[in-house]
Amino acid sequence: MKVKVSRREHFNAAHRLHNPEWSAEVNEKIFGKCNNPNYHGHNYDLIVSLTGEPDPKTGYLFDLKVLSDIIKDNVLVKFDHKNLNLDTEYFKNLNPTAENIAVIIWRILRQKIDSHFELKITLYETERNFVEYPAS
Amino acid sequence: MKVKVSRREHFNAAHRLHNPEWSAEVNEKIFGKCNNPNYHGHNYDLIVSLTGEPDPKTGYLFDLKVLSDIIKDNVLVKFDHKNLNLDTEYFKNLNPTAENIAVIIWRILRQKIDSHFELKITLYETERNFVEYPAS
Amino acid sequence: MKVKVSRREHFNAAHRLHNPEWSAEVNEKIFGKCNNPNYHGHNYDLIVSLTGEPDPKTGYLFDLKVLSDIIKDNVLVKFDHKNLNLDTEYFKNLNPTAENIAVIIWRILRQKIDSHFELKITLYETERNFVEYPAS
Amino acid sequence: MKVKVSRREHFNAAHRLHNPEWSAEVNEKIFGKCNNPNYHGHNYDLIVSLTGEPDPKTGYLFDLKVLSDIIKDNVLVKFDHKNLNLDTEYFKNLNPTAENIAVIIWRILRQKIDSHFELKITLYETERNFVEYPAS
Amino acid sequence: MKVKVSRREHFNAAHRLHNPEWSAEVNEKIFGKCNNPNYHGHNYDLIVSLTGEPDPKTGYLFDLKVLSDIIKDNVLVKFDHKNLNLDTEYFKNLNPTAENIAVIIWRILRQKIDSHFELKITLYETERNFVEYPAS
Amino acid sequence: MKVKVSRREHFNAAHRLHNPEWSAEVNEKIFGKCNNPNYHGHNYDLIVSLTGEPDPKTGYLFDLKVLSDIIKDNVLVKFDHKNLNLDTEYFKNLNPTAENIAVIIWRILRQKIDSHFELKITLYETERNFVEYPAS
Repeated sequence: MKVKVSRREHFNAAHRLHNPEWSAEVNEKIFGKCNNPNYHGHNYDLIVSLTGEPDPKTGYLFDLKVLSDIIKDNVLVKFDHKNLNLDTEYFKNLNPTAENIAVIIWRILRQKIDSHFELKITLYETERNFVEYPAS
Repeated sequence: MKVKVSRREHFNAAHRLHNPEWSAEVNEKIFGKCNNPNYHGHNYDLIVSLTGEPDPKTGYLFDLKVLSDIIKDNVLVKFDHKNLNLDTEYFKNLNPTAENIAVIIWRILRQKIDSHFELKITLYETERNFVEYPAS
Repeated sequence: MKVKVSRREHFNAAHRLHNPEWSAEVNEKIFGKCNNPNYHGHNYDLIVSLTGEPDPKTGYLFDLKVLSDIIKDNVLVKFDHKNLNLDTEYFKNLNPTAENIAVIIWRILRQKIDSHFELKITLYETERNFVEYPAS
Repeated sequence: MKVKVSRREHFNAAHRLHNPEWSAEVNEKIFGKCNNPNYHGHNYDLIVSLTGEPDPKTGYLFDLKVLSDIIKDNVLVKFDHKNLNLDTEYFKNLNPTAENIAVIIWRILRQKIDSHFELKITLYETERNFVEYPAS
Repeated sequence: MKVKVSRREHFNAAHRLHNPEWSAEVNEKIFGKCNNPNYHGHNYDLIVSLTGEPDPKTGYLFDLKVLSDIIKDNVLVKFDHKNLNLDTEYFKNLNPTAENIAVIIWRILRQKIDSHFELKITLYETERNFVEYPAS
Repeated sequence: MKVKVSRREHFNAAHRLHNPEWSAEVNEKIFGKCNNPNYHGHNYDLIVSLTGEPDPKTGYLFDLKVLSDIIKDNVLVKFDHKNLNLDTEYFKNLNPTAENIAVIIWRILRQKIDSHFELKITLYETERNFVEYPAS
């Protein structure tokens, strides 16, 4: 049976939900307050989980201090204290919903984490709204 | 790979655990303090999770404001600030354990959420006791 | 300068807000959902704080294990898994609002804690609603 | 002795810390990542506390449902899902630090809450950074 | 479909991460501050989850008061307020990483919980670092 | 009216409560499980609060990034992942109760924070046990 280890980090960012193919009225109807043209923001809580077999010599599946550094160097440096729409390359043409942010973070980290570890992202946009990718 | 999105809501309710087919002694032995004839109560924390494919036009799997409204209109209106045994139709002949409350909420919401979304309920009765349905 | 030490406990109880001198309409208007005749309930989080001078021999202001036992033996035994209106002597003629519950707990514990310690009660009725007595 | 009651609400907003009298270099030096020209954002947790004497007829110091509505109608409607610098009148010429936001919220609510209640604001910008006004 | 029920407990313990087959330099390099020869410690939060079919007579999958007692009598009595390396039999020759502690707790409880319940352990070493066994 | 700002940090440490002037029996009676000769440990949550007048040019009472650095450089470097009894100078002859740890941290930081700010320490030893110094 495998073990899963998880590390929680956070970042603070501004964003706006908007589909440029739609009229202002449709955007307002679909995204409501999240469509505010001047942006709003969140304290995002990010949990990165790895699944696999622990190393018997260390007792670690993965050193969580190293995982924390990987997250900081590859995700937080790009997203923390940023405007997700304007300051990142990822959301120029992709709506920064929690679902899409989680998928993007998964893709970024998947390149940095050895493929024999399963990778999962959990992202809290608020205490009440959160997403997981992949779902299970 | 699929995405899971979750919305947390809460409700405050009174309940009593009791099996009318058993004697008072057996009820007291099985349910302990939870068998108090005058009821006790909890702040229930309810997490509703949906799994599926996000809509590429919105970036949403499901609009969580809409999900919140569905939960309020179909669950909270029936359970919040209620006596689960006396004020609801569901627990006239069913013990309002956390397990049974979670299953009932799943059945209520399953009728309101399009079937191509998987549905899962997590219910915290206290910070220390919680249930999930279905289990995985 | 003095030190304050605090111990957090919790209890689960049912209650109803109601003033018997008023009509059903006035009670409904004033107390809303909290006036439900069949009761509702909460997970109450209780913080008991003592202020004074630590004992130099122990380094303790007050042994928090002892404080926990005092709270359990004098408050939780009366309130946990109870109907505050029906099962306790305190709220026969006193409305069990969070304000009144906090004052009653203060009075109960004031008799059990040496008077050279200042005593303060903080009571969370929900994560969003809480009271303190005395206020400062 | 008086009682204090508190209500917790939250709002999500974008902001930027910047002093227009200073050069870009000084702003960057003083405010660091918080000076990002494209804004960043937070989930602000707001606690509003009132101190006074409970009404013996209700057992309430202040109906927290009413307090919640006052906060929503006077604060959240202006700040939630907004850019504090661009979308509000308050921070045109005032830096939206947590300190200043707390003072502004206190001033807004002070006009809406009867003066025989003491009023206090606690504002969490993140789980780790928070301010209180007035201090005691 | 099955139901999962979970009970949260906690214990406070000291530990040190160290592999006696390695030099002091390698231990310091691999385990960093966690290799401190005089130990450090944590408030461990332990969640024990059982999956199966509820009993229709009680509405319980498993009485969580009984589960709490099983955890206390078999795990907490051995680990709470202990030095995991020195005071327990389990970590004489096994590094007390969160991964290994979770596996050991699973093995201890597996013998005490009827095998028709699936058993899962979640162990928080800190708010930011946690492990699950088995992974799914 | 003044403003109070607070910064939360944490450290993980081992400790033992013991008075060398007492017999083993008295130590066991007074300190119970906390007297374990091999130590136990905690995740300490530390809140440092400063009170004063914000600077109108920045809108800050005190830059919380700077406060965080002061705490890390003067407190965490000494206490995090340490044995408080063996690895620090402060608790050679002083029992590392939460009360005493809070007073020591106050003394350390009082020398690093300008005296026109009032300084207060809140220290959580567990979620349920915490101390404040000074008390108000």
